[in-house]
Amino acid sequence: MAATPRYDLYYWPTIQGRGEFVRLVFEDAGVAYRDMARLPETEGGGRGAILRMLAGAPRGTPPFAPPVLNVGDLWLAQTALICRHIAAPCGLLPANETARLHAEQLMITIMDMVVEAHDVHHPLAKSMYYEEQQAEARRRAAVFHAERLPKLMDYFERALAANDSGGPWLVGESASYADLALFQLIAGLGHAFPRALAAQAGTAPRVMALHGAVAERPGVRAYLASPRRLPFNEHGIFRHYPELDLPPAT
Amino acid sequence: MAATPRYDLYYWPTIQGRGEFVRLVFEDAGVAYRDMARLPETEGGGRGAILRMLAGAPRGTPPFAPPVLNVGDLWLAQTALICRHIAAPCGLLPANETARLHAEQLMITIMDMVVEAHDVHHPLAKSMYYEEQQAEARRRAAVFHAERLPKLMDYFERALAANDSGGPWLVGESASYADLALFQLIAGLGHAFPRALAAQAGTAPRVMALHGAVAERPGVRAYLASPRRLPFNEHGIFRHYPELDLPPAT
Repeated sequence: MAATPRYDLYYWPTIQGRGEFVRLVFEDAGVAYRDMARLPETEGGGRGAILRMLAGAPRGTPPFAPPVLNVGDLWLAQTALICRHIAAPCGLLPANETARLHAEQLMITIMDMVVEAHDVHHPLAKSMYYEEQQAEARRRAAVFHAERLPKLMDYFERALAANDSGGPWLVGESASYADLALFQLIAGLGHAFPRALAAQAGTAPRVMALHGAVAERPGVRAYLASPRRLPFNEHGIFRHYPELDLPPAT
Repeated sequence: MAATPRYDLYYWPTIQGRGEFVRLVFEDAGVAYRDMARLPETEGGGRGAILRMLAGAPRGTPPFAPPVLNVGDLWLAQTALICRHIAAPCGLLPANETARLHAEQLMITIMDMVVEAHDVHHPLAKSMYYEEQQAEARRRAAVFHAERLPKLMDYFERALAANDSGGPWLVGESASYADLALFQLIAGLGHAFPRALAAQAGTAPRVMALHGAVAERPGVRAYLASPRRLPFNEHGIFRHYPELDLPPAT
């Protein structure tokens, strides 16, 4: 009997962030993983778990930043790559080669959008406080709502429409890790910019249906209702600063 | 005898941009490709080639943006993914599985850095002119030079040092598509921020040696000397605005 591999995820313990895309894959599948920095400090958890991992020089190519996955001798970074790597054992890898490539293309595009959404509140520097770049953030937010958010919603709506297999998913007939990632992107945008997302939802019914379909998958639904799902907060990627959302309808 | 596949690359005809990472893989290998938008207009080239491709709905998942590769029935977007896809026929795919994963990790990280470098001159919006966000660009540039550029140089220096196979390459004993991409990143940073890069070069000798080693590969050397290598210019990702570089040494 083959031993089940032990999956250890290293990601900041107090935010969803990029680690959430990895957590969702494991949780959807019900595959066991250790969220290392969320273990008790007495068991080696906490932020120290990440700092020790980064300082401890995993063998081979080092990671630039969390999330980092350790499985056996492999240490792997980059969210899109980690999600793809665990997709097969989690039953979330498309069956045919073209669909696998397109799931990757979509996943990388989603992660590009995550950067764009983050940089709305931090257009100048990650290392500066929001309050130091608030005026710039307001200018960036206006363009994001007028141009980038409609463009991204239109893109994923077209991608979903181009899948003629009849289901709610991005590629093929089954859910893939890219679908979970699009769910998380939409969830995050809905937290950060509820009015702006609501203004777009009507033009992207397939995107909103996919968001709902992922939320109803048994593994995801159980996860979202559990304490393992950290709430969104104003330390992560998707932050709700009302002044960066669309103004209220009058 | 198997027919050689026909590789058609769709990318903007007047800039290096993200397309350059793909061009370098083909050029290093001497594998024939058509740079569709650089064909004469009478042969269907020009920007119209891209606009028609985008409007013409390639079968399957649509691309979000160029570069797009067409080979046979496959239409594929996202620079990192295209480069990996053509790496095997171009002799630039690492031989073992872990090295292949780490090449991908590095490639995605390099493309993240490309976004960071681009956003130095466009921190607020791609759709606005540089002159409309010049003050913000100066603030972002200062942080980029103080924090992000040292961090990225240090990271790739450590990645190169962690490869104990003795060569100048990022993974394993042979060059991979990730090495070509790091060459292009350093070349671009050297165009955009010559003083800032020079200030870092001494702390990252392996990075600078890799840049030199790639430039001396026969296919790359011939390409760089050819008219196919577009010059850097102030319409692409890496733009030389002197006011965004470090100030001159006094």
